[in-house]
Amino acid sequence: MTGRPVVVAAAQLGPIARADTRGEVVERLITLLREAAGRGAELVVFPELALTTFFPRWLIEDEAELDAFFETEMPGPETKPLFDEAQRLGVGFHLGYAERTPDGHRYNTAILVERDGEVVAHYRKVHVPGHEEPEPWRPFQHLERRYFEPGPEGFAVHEAFGGKVGMAICNDRRWPETYRVMGLLGVELVLIGYNTPIHYAPDPGQDRLAGFHNNLVMASGAYQNGTWVVGVAKGGMEEGVDGLAESQIIAPSGEVVAKALTNGDEIVLATCDLDRGFDYKRTVFDLDRYRRPEHYGSIAEPVRATAPEPDRDPAADS
Amino acid sequence: MTGRPVVVAAAQLGPIARADTRGEVVERLITLLREAAGRGAELVVFPELALTTFFPRWLIEDEAELDAFFETEMPGPETKPLFDEAQRLGVGFHLGYAERTPDGHRYNTAILVERDGEVVAHYRKVHVPGHEEPEPWRPFQHLERRYFEPGPEGFAVHEAFGGKVGMAICNDRRWPETYRVMGLLGVELVLIGYNTPIHYAPDPGQDRLAGFHNNLVMASGAYQNGTWVVGVAKGGMEEGVDGLAESQIIAPSGEVVAKALTNGDEIVLATCDLDRGFDYKRTVFDLDRYRRPEHYGSIAEPVRATAPEPDRDPAADS
Repeated sequence: MTGRPVVVAAAQLGPIARADTRGEVVERLITLLREAAGRGAELVVFPELALTTFFPRWLIEDEAELDAFFETEMPGPETKPLFDEAQRLGVGFHLGYAERTPDGHRYNTAILVERDGEVVAHYRKVHVPGHEEPEPWRPFQHLERRYFEPGPEGFAVHEAFGGKVGMAICNDRRWPETYRVMGLLGVELVLIGYNTPIHYAPDPGQDRLAGFHNNLVMASGAYQNGTWVVGVAKGGMEEGVDGLAESQIIAPSGEVVAKALTNGDEIVLATCDLDRGFDYKRTVFDLDRYRRPEHYGSIAEPVRATAPEPDRDPAADS
Repeated sequence: MTGRPVVVAAAQLGPIARADTRGEVVERLITLLREAAGRGAELVVFPELALTTFFPRWLIEDEAELDAFFETEMPGPETKPLFDEAQRLGVGFHLGYAERTPDGHRYNTAILVERDGEVVAHYRKVHVPGHEEPEPWRPFQHLERRYFEPGPEGFAVHEAFGGKVGMAICNDRRWPETYRVMGLLGVELVLIGYNTPIHYAPDPGQDRLAGFHNNLVMASGAYQNGTWVVGVAKGGMEEGVDGLAESQIIAPSGEVVAKALTNGDEIVLATCDLDRGFDYKRTVFDLDRYRRPEHYGSIAEPVRATAPEPDRDPAADS
């Protein structure tokens, strides 16, 4: 194969129970890592918050109880076996986890590690969805905005795996700005982990479209920037909440080249030729040639001071 | 039906030959207008450059010959019968045409006319695709950048048809910025005419994806801004060039609710409840609540001074 092929594995996870220990989860990650390596993977992409259950579904008022879901070092004693095994296998990886900094900030974070074990970069989730205060009318909470600050650094692109690699997390993938900011930096491979409840309490009419929307936003982001996109789920029925699976690897054409068949632990693998992006970057999406940024000013302007129309009564939805 | 329903017709056109007169074309438009009105349409959307063949496929060096494709007034003597009939029927419309201003500027333009005959707005295409100089290796030219200046006004949203209506033209639809700038203005209905050759000479590998990409960009733009999108083609085999048809009306969910079955003159009709957009504007795409514009600065920055990587030799594609 000519070009710059990278064999990428989306390591989809099935549910993680609240009671599961880090050690148990890391064992699952290592099992997936080994399977992917055995199939030739050079980069294994784990999902968002891959070390624990998706704890923002609960109101957790006890700080110690909340802190137990966060990592204060990466690798720490419980995650080091994954780092060691990856280095031994010569496989790079991407891992989402809850980060608590030494000065007490909490972020929804992902780390990118090269095949030689070098830490390439961290990314902290920019677009934090959900709500700040508990909303008892919901069948389950989505308190990401209570537990995580938005990432202060924004989006970046890193030289790794022979190309330009970027990261985004879950809700980031719904925003075209996510891909475009990285596209302007020449991104060739975007790694995105997600935890997406199929039931969307503010508008349950969207539930039946969860898989369609998941693909739509990643495929358009790929095409419009000429980049590969790897979307990796933690899916399946976790603590009573059904999570979207449908992990997928999308070419710069917007086409899905590999997709999960289950909603459990599963390796989805594809050879991603990073040169494929040039088909789009040098033609229809030659950003320098065809964009008209003089008309895009409002996109980067601060949030409007005017209040949006009030939310309708969510209880009316159910 | 509750909400704010507007019955919208996408009036797809089949080919227009170079030799066809304005009078002949306007007769076809009136026929479509009457059919749409008979089916209850309140707004009839004609495609880009709906009055002539797609003349940028030729190098036209004689200025008088080129000028013959442009309108210097709208309505003019040849288009006034369309305006008159629309007003008589009480139907609004959107019409794309080549505009030559009194001071000699040339734009790829669309006009929006209300049901009472009032001209609501003009829109001049911002994202002008193709090339400036003839490229003899192409089987046909795409000299839009030779014949049209980019629209200087950018994107706008207008109070019309009981809601907030925006316009874009052809290549504009591939750029997420198009929808987002209008989305930030609260757009509820985006009207887009297009002429899209299925064969894309700079990368023929994209030809088989023409329909997929057409839908992908409009559906994601709709969903990500909670707006209806009406895409209207001039399609079919026109002067030896096969044009994509697939006119479609897309709901704020991103779902296609009506789509053309032919590549000729055809009315595609749907009842668009403008309130449907609130399902998205007030939840997952509450732009004020969830966007992080402090990280989007590069999107609105001027085009980079650094040269992009050189185009590969296009002759190598064929």
